[in-house]
Amino acid sequence: MKILVLGGDGFCGWPTSLHLSDQGHEITIVDNLSRREIDLELEVESLTPIRPMGERLRVWKELTGNEIRFVHLDLAEEYDRLEALIAETAPDAIVHFGEQRAAPYSMRSTAAKRYTVDNNVRGTHNVLAAIVATGLDVALVHLGTMGVYGYGWSGSAPIPEGYLTVKVPTPDGDIDREILHPANPGSVYHMTKTLDQLLFAFYAKNDGLRISDLHQGIVWGTQTPQTVLDERLINRFDYDGDYGTVLNRFLMQAAIGHPLTVHGTGGQTRAFIHIRDTVRCIQIALENPPAAGDQVKVFNQVTETHRVAELAEMISKLTGVEVAYLPNPRKEAAENELNVDREKFLELGLNPTRLSEGLLEESRDVAVKYRDRADTTKIIARSTWRKGMEVSPDLVKE
Amino acid sequence: MKILVLGGDGFCGWPTSLHLSDQGHEITIVDNLSRREIDLELEVESLTPIRPMGERLRVWKELTGNEIRFVHLDLAEEYDRLEALIAETAPDAIVHFGEQRAAPYSMRSTAAKRYTVDNNVRGTHNVLAAIVATGLDVALVHLGTMGVYGYGWSGSAPIPEGYLTVKVPTPDGDIDREILHPANPGSVYHMTKTLDQLLFAFYAKNDGLRISDLHQGIVWGTQTPQTVLDERLINRFDYDGDYGTVLNRFLMQAAIGHPLTVHGTGGQTRAFIHIRDTVRCIQIALENPPAAGDQVKVFNQVTETHRVAELAEMISKLTGVEVAYLPNPRKEAAENELNVDREKFLELGLNPTRLSEGLLEESRDVAVKYRDRADTTKIIARSTWRKGMEVSPDLVKE
Repeated sequence: MKILVLGGDGFCGWPTSLHLSDQGHEITIVDNLSRREIDLELEVESLTPIRPMGERLRVWKELTGNEIRFVHLDLAEEYDRLEALIAETAPDAIVHFGEQRAAPYSMRSTAAKRYTVDNNVRGTHNVLAAIVATGLDVALVHLGTMGVYGYGWSGSAPIPEGYLTVKVPTPDGDIDREILHPANPGSVYHMTKTLDQLLFAFYAKNDGLRISDLHQGIVWGTQTPQTVLDERLINRFDYDGDYGTVLNRFLMQAAIGHPLTVHGTGGQTRAFIHIRDTVRCIQIALENPPAAGDQVKVFNQVTETHRVAELAEMISKLTGVEVAYLPNPRKEAAENELNVDREKFLELGLNPTRLSEGLLEESRDVAVKYRDRADTTKIIARSTWRKGMEVSPDLVKE
Repeated sequence: MKILVLGGDGFCGWPTSLHLSDQGHEITIVDNLSRREIDLELEVESLTPIRPMGERLRVWKELTGNEIRFVHLDLAEEYDRLEALIAETAPDAIVHFGEQRAAPYSMRSTAAKRYTVDNNVRGTHNVLAAIVATGLDVALVHLGTMGVYGYGWSGSAPIPEGYLTVKVPTPDGDIDREILHPANPGSVYHMTKTLDQLLFAFYAKNDGLRISDLHQGIVWGTQTPQTVLDERLINRFDYDGDYGTVLNRFLMQAAIGHPLTVHGTGGQTRAFIHIRDTVRCIQIALENPPAAGDQVKVFNQVTETHRVAELAEMISKLTGVEVAYLPNPRKEAAENELNVDREKFLELGLNPTRLSEGLLEESRDVAVKYRDRADTTKIIARSTWRKGMEVSPDLVKE
């Protein structure tokens, strides 16, 4: 297949591009390098030493003979170039990771809120409008988030894969209706993915676009079989308060002897997936697209669920590093259950990497190996959901 | 009250600004004049001779002594000026009409789709972000659309005012959940108002913003007690294929002896409201805002429902002009029932203008009076929902 990977320089996009290239697909990465630019703005760096795109692609070609093309392009700001690229490439599929993806960053400032909405909504809509404008039959696979659902809405029922059948009371008795699971986003970032859902539903209905939306849990891990081939192919590892995801943050904190920072009670249950499974899920979604005229195909891209405090305790036991309970900068329930339907990918052959298998390897090969690159002043979360919310005290004195 | 009226130069915004000024409120109109610019692009004009904003406001002051301020500002593109304006004015309320509002225009071209999404979503989000950034307690009243609901979803149950209680099946039995009525927009324009709903829900929940969303039906009529005071205050009347709403289009067609153009079977049932009631509804919503922490307050701003063919026949009988059935450029059901809850405004004192009362006056004082200004080549709808859909044949030879 010819595939465009939008956002192919990012944490999920890069290993996905290599995985699909490795499978024999013809890959074009499209990226505005915004993730690297936000690193400059936040004055942080990936714990792992990521290389410029040109070097990454040169090394990949040397090692495997596979050519990946790179187009530096902003989805939100350069519509005409995007449409021309799609028309000229005539891809079979587009994988869309090209959105600002950190919830704390999206709540950090007015500018960050606005950037997140403007970039994500315009970019996604431009992709849809461009597919329609070219008239090509292109399957779209989009990375959504479990955060579109919120938590604990449906009592003891698991969160379904996108759609829910409810009973609507009418004067003639209850009628069954299938609805998109109601949106309950917890941040401006998550909100943009609920907007994306409505864009997708409309373009699937009006234009017959073939769209899959993958509601992913929190990704952990760093390397895939491809990124591990050469240090110059290494994937990024974020540990800062805005972009660091909880499990990777704990592993890095443990590696440098920094207390494991839990925000709030740690009773929040979250869904997880290893980056190796992310790239496999994208492949499976590409191989199983909906037909034209179908509704958007929604998958929950999740392999296990854990309470945050439970993860911290697990890593604390493994490493001897203590757990620190800090104020919660988010507006969210102190505790929640989380029960998620995740059958679709399993039925299509996903064989998940368990937390219990991958944790030590991740800690040894990434967090410990690169710990000297850490800037400890960037670990603590400073973004708050509303003005006046308590922020975390500094835990490590220089 | 100090009130900003965003989009105060438009068809609903202008008479609302005058009505609220007449009630003694201190009004600032904020508008980028995009509606007049789109007229230039489409090479059409309001049937009624609308005047420049400066003249409109000068005449209003001469007649009533009331000063209305005007700020030429683009909500989507000029965030910093918008935030500064809100901070400096410290309004009690903001009425938000500032969005591209024609469904056919929003489907006309890739550029028009993109403009509608980018302008409407960014503008609305900028307003929300600016209210949060200033920290002021400002009630927001937004003009939504009945089109967020779609048609005929809930069987014999009427479309509720925003929220619906459904039964969700769980292993422990059904549980009741109140949800925002599922979105089922029929055009890119309508879709943007479903996105607005999610923006509002988030900012009400996260920041305690006080927001009312008014889901309006199709507006008919032109004048209000204020716009009728002087011809230089006259409201706009659109009759072209993109911006002309169905009933006003019929009246104008009748006035010039042009067949009344029904798209499809005419079995589509739609909800209507007179412009005089629109301005009263806005006033009522301003006087009854939600409290901080409340969910978004949703009203259905609708006074009656009719089938399109029924309206055409009614006007045909009144005027002797025949009805022409043309291809339908929209993707929609050929026929639908429409049953709408509309108690809230009635309970708060709205006394609706009935179609049966206002039709003749409208025909005589507007459509007939200004019929010589009509460009008959602009009457027929040319925008289609998908490439290759049939367009309407020309009916009037020059």
